[in-house]
Amino acid sequence: MSSAVPVLNFGSMTQVIQFLMEIDKLKSVQRRTKVLGTQRQENSAEHSWHFAVAAFSLAPYASKEVDIQRVIQMALLHDIVEIDAGDVFVYDLSARAEIHDQEVAAAKRLFGLLPEPQREQFTALWQEYEEGSSADARFAFMLDRAMPMLMNLHNQGQSWIENNVSLNQVLERNGVIGDIHPELWQHLLHHLQEAQRKGWLK
Amino acid sequence: MSSAVPVLNFGSMTQVIQFLMEIDKLKSVQRRTKVLGTQRQENSAEHSWHFAVAAFSLAPYASKEVDIQRVIQMALLHDIVEIDAGDVFVYDLSARAEIHDQEVAAAKRLFGLLPEPQREQFTALWQEYEEGSSADARFAFMLDRAMPMLMNLHNQGQSWIENNVSLNQVLERNGVIGDIHPELWQHLLHHLQEAQRKGWLK
Repeated sequence: MSSAVPVLNFGSMTQVIQFLMEIDKLKSVQRRTKVLGTQRQENSAEHSWHFAVAAFSLAPYASKEVDIQRVIQMALLHDIVEIDAGDVFVYDLSARAEIHDQEVAAAKRLFGLLPEPQREQFTALWQEYEEGSSADARFAFMLDRAMPMLMNLHNQGQSWIENNVSLNQVLERNGVIGDIHPELWQHLLHHLQEAQRKGWLK
Repeated sequence: MSSAVPVLNFGSMTQVIQFLMEIDKLKSVQRRTKVLGTQRQENSAEHSWHFAVAAFSLAPYASKEVDIQRVIQMALLHDIVEIDAGDVFVYDLSARAEIHDQEVAAAKRLFGLLPEPQREQFTALWQEYEEGSSADARFAFMLDRAMPMLMNLHNQGQSWIENNVSLNQVLERNGVIGDIHPELWQHLLHHLQEAQRKGWLK
């Protein structure tokens, strides 16, 4: 699962430093989406940065109940479980159903490297995100779904074409964005239909 | 400088989406530090994520005057100027002195893609970070300096050895950490001296 990272003494910060060195592995978890205009698949660490900046930049377009700082925190942590559980393509429904238990175990191991109060805080934030149990979590979820669509729309449908994805699949899996941010969804829907006309989506 | 990214209409969000697609290029700016245990240089986007999580995780060890949310925001934005100006190695003093004007121009162009209030907010945060003009900026600066040292200490001195760096250089460039976080610096200093004994630093 993971190669050993040496443990160095940093006094009261030893566990946090160890956690930070362990999560370096997220930089090696590959996604289906490629960096725009390149042939390199993005990894989950750089995606998490992009998602966090998206949350920060789109703050004025979130509803008043959304605390954008908590959305940024969720963006930073949401994929850390993939270090153990791997990234599963959003349109691979059977794999997604199977992976939940692995992600829970991964959260326990990885956030478990931290001392309190960070251990409980990070675990609770990740769970809230996973469950979509707050306005913050739903805004975060919406952005995490929107980012690869935006990347595809600006990259000639790269991961849709490479993975043979249909417009129906995109609408079924992402239509929930319409409930969370109707204005963004309205524009996405228009561009998705254009993408199908261009042959980027089946 | 930059290949053209198509501009799609997203109503009031068009400029922000365009900004987000433009800053995808940070994923292609390479640093000297390699991802732990690999031969791949990390890029400035994944470094920014790592730095932001470090800020979040180390919040309990910051002084009370530090607002960790603003530190996270600085971490997310601090390297975006490198899209135009490039990454300069921390020990390349002549190149660092020359690059400042380019970075100011880059901030103007890149944050200038945003509408208000984000344009002014992001520019001001980046300037505050650059100038070290607040407790938040100094904590952020300290962490940005600490991260590659931590990576090197956990990766057999990789970028120090590859770039022929000496202990004296590290102490001169990073000793300021001792003023900002004496406890972290005390531990780093011990490990840096060990690193020299192992031949990782000249």
